[in-house]
Amino acid sequence: MADLPVSPLAPASFPSLPVIKGARFATAEAGVKYQRRTDVMLAVLDPGSAIAGVFTKSATRSSNVLDCQTKIGIDSDDGAAIIVNSGNSNAFTGRAGDQSVQEICQAVSSVTGLPAERVFTSSTGVIGERLPHDRINAKIDELNANLHTGGMPDAAKAIMTTDTFAKGSAAEIDIDGKTIRIAGIAKGSGMVAPDMATMLVYIFTDAKIARPELQALLSDLTEVTFNAITVDSDTSTSDTLLLAATGASNVDVSSQSGAFKTALHSVMLDLAHQVVRDGEGATKFVEVNVTGAASDADARTHALAIANSPLVKTAIAGEDPNWGRIVMAIGKSGAAADRDLLTIRFGSILVAENGWVADSYTEEDGSAYMKNQELTIGVDLGLGEGASKVWTCDLTHQYITINADYRS
Amino acid sequence: MADLPVSPLAPASFPSLPVIKGARFATAEAGVKYQRRTDVMLAVLDPGSAIAGVFTKSATRSSNVLDCQTKIGIDSDDGAAIIVNSGNSNAFTGRAGDQSVQEICQAVSSVTGLPAERVFTSSTGVIGERLPHDRINAKIDELNANLHTGGMPDAAKAIMTTDTFAKGSAAEIDIDGKTIRIAGIAKGSGMVAPDMATMLVYIFTDAKIARPELQALLSDLTEVTFNAITVDSDTSTSDTLLLAATGASNVDVSSQSGAFKTALHSVMLDLAHQVVRDGEGATKFVEVNVTGAASDADARTHALAIANSPLVKTAIAGEDPNWGRIVMAIGKSGAAADRDLLTIRFGSILVAENGWVADSYTEEDGSAYMKNQELTIGVDLGLGEGASKVWTCDLTHQYITINADYRS
Repeated sequence: MADLPVSPLAPASFPSLPVIKGARFATAEAGVKYQRRTDVMLAVLDPGSAIAGVFTKSATRSSNVLDCQTKIGIDSDDGAAIIVNSGNSNAFTGRAGDQSVQEICQAVSSVTGLPAERVFTSSTGVIGERLPHDRINAKIDELNANLHTGGMPDAAKAIMTTDTFAKGSAAEIDIDGKTIRIAGIAKGSGMVAPDMATMLVYIFTDAKIARPELQALLSDLTEVTFNAITVDSDTSTSDTLLLAATGASNVDVSSQSGAFKTALHSVMLDLAHQVVRDGEGATKFVEVNVTGAASDADARTHALAIANSPLVKTAIAGEDPNWGRIVMAIGKSGAAADRDLLTIRFGSILVAENGWVADSYTEEDGSAYMKNQELTIGVDLGLGEGASKVWTCDLTHQYITINADYRS
Repeated sequence: MADLPVSPLAPASFPSLPVIKGARFATAEAGVKYQRRTDVMLAVLDPGSAIAGVFTKSATRSSNVLDCQTKIGIDSDDGAAIIVNSGNSNAFTGRAGDQSVQEICQAVSSVTGLPAERVFTSSTGVIGERLPHDRINAKIDELNANLHTGGMPDAAKAIMTTDTFAKGSAAEIDIDGKTIRIAGIAKGSGMVAPDMATMLVYIFTDAKIARPELQALLSDLTEVTFNAITVDSDTSTSDTLLLAATGASNVDVSSQSGAFKTALHSVMLDLAHQVVRDGEGATKFVEVNVTGAASDADARTHALAIANSPLVKTAIAGEDPNWGRIVMAIGKSGAAADRDLLTIRFGSILVAENGWVADSYTEEDGSAYMKNQELTIGVDLGLGEGASKVWTCDLTHQYITINADYRS
């Protein structure tokens, strides 16, 4: 799997990430599974940092996720650590998985001096194999000694599994003459293959904001970013998104949340899009923009039905302007639709309206549009004000090759 | 698409179908889209026949389906006709589609002498192109003249689109020394590709049974047959299942519904399985058997999550005993599950229990099992008595080839 070519949809380069004061990073080669590459990252956050998190809803989620969820709602000024390994997901490893998490937390706690309740862990990689946590714990002294504020780009590499490129994003805003910085990293290339890929995201800011407000902001923005992307409709047992605010800028954004929210949204959306752009086998980046639905929830149901339809996704892979499959997906979604009120667009091209193909539409126009690498499928239901955007990629031979032809 | 090889999962031969007294069939070459093959079939049912039906729930269903639904609940002793064309689905053709259905019904009515309200139509093939109903109507005299009781096998061929084999099934039961016969035909090869494949099923019996009872039986059995199969999670705008009881055997099965129901179930399940066996690109036939769920509905949710998961389906295609993906699918389904109570089996091989891989399981056993052409994935949730079985196929390169590489 190491030989996978970089996705054609990858950004030209890894972005320059600003230093986030109060957050330090280190990486190491623990040899959990991979050899001759970093596979563990440690982030340590200064006292006073607020931590918020969003996690997979999977009923079979990993021990790490369950442990993070018990800790995320606690208010503390003690600072915090985040430790992440790649190569082994520690998922579906029974009670042994719970024990591995406890042992890692204890080890990080004793080296960093942080309480174990302030140590958050993630694991990503093969499922169902006992996590060799001793290999990770043997590196914690080294990690702690190497912590530095400029370590985030290396951390982005250490958490990769089947990713074909490292993912980072950043934003800066000025409030009252002071600068607030946000920077984050992510990994993920299938919406998930639990033995290979999963979505992990860590975002850091020097803004000052109380934990409950930070959590509300994160939960809200997750709906329109990471919860609005899909590669293959499969959901990981390990998906984790942590957001840490160190407060080191001394700019309180609680009352300024408009500008901060906008900047945070841009970082989250950029990282979410990068995950789609690294979708297994992806050759097209697709926005599905549904408007005019009876409700926002209905719009989302329609958008996900289109974005997850194997027939829509294969048509896109084949550059086939097969709008009939979009009609099919809308019809099957279960949300309200009226054949004769539907409007379908490819980019700005009007494709169908009034229950039929548009008079002005030509197959030539549709075919030419589908050759683009970035596509927008627009659907208006003509029923109300409900709207939703989701992002996905196409379904190609390479997806089958990655997931069927290679053995785990 | 005509060059697709016959599915490796196809039955050895088309079955011998018994004559159903009171039902006559004819086929013709109308040239709707295909050339040098039959593409229209007419079935005429004697007076006294009861008709029941089940249809797609798609919100964008075709004019034909909408028309059938308005007629299916009417009690009538006038007899009935079923006319089906392949090559054009008449779906998403606006008001013109409604008009085509009316014109076909009128034409069949005037030739057969049946009221138009007793004419049921189906169309399957490309979506969004105006149905050239004149070509069909030009053949109705010929069809009517050629009606004969032995025409069902030819009818099975006339309704094919991307199917790689014709689908038929039959059963006979003896009640009080008299024989009741059931015979049916089906087409379908994707769960649907609306511009290519859709699921159409026509079943005939000489049993005597009132329409409401026939409908109740059909609706009930559809849940555990045609609604328990999935190829790609996509649902057609045209799916139609009609069941006609001519009563010609003079055996009233209303009070004998046990034996009749069992026989009807066997025909419906056989046809449903044949649709899966002709799934686009299928090389494996897979039963997903979920037990121990909190409810039957939960069991079905889990079973469909597994059967529709691209990652599970590609693992099966790759003969990879990747039970972690089954854990993932259970976790994402939204129905109740407890990691530590789950049991997973491949056939009779115990794979996972107590939240982890089973002590007795070996990767060699799993790999050997996955080489079978017919597989059973067993999942017990350990929570209750809920159970559900669904059937699916694998997701292969050929599925991508059929749906992406060819243009419609």
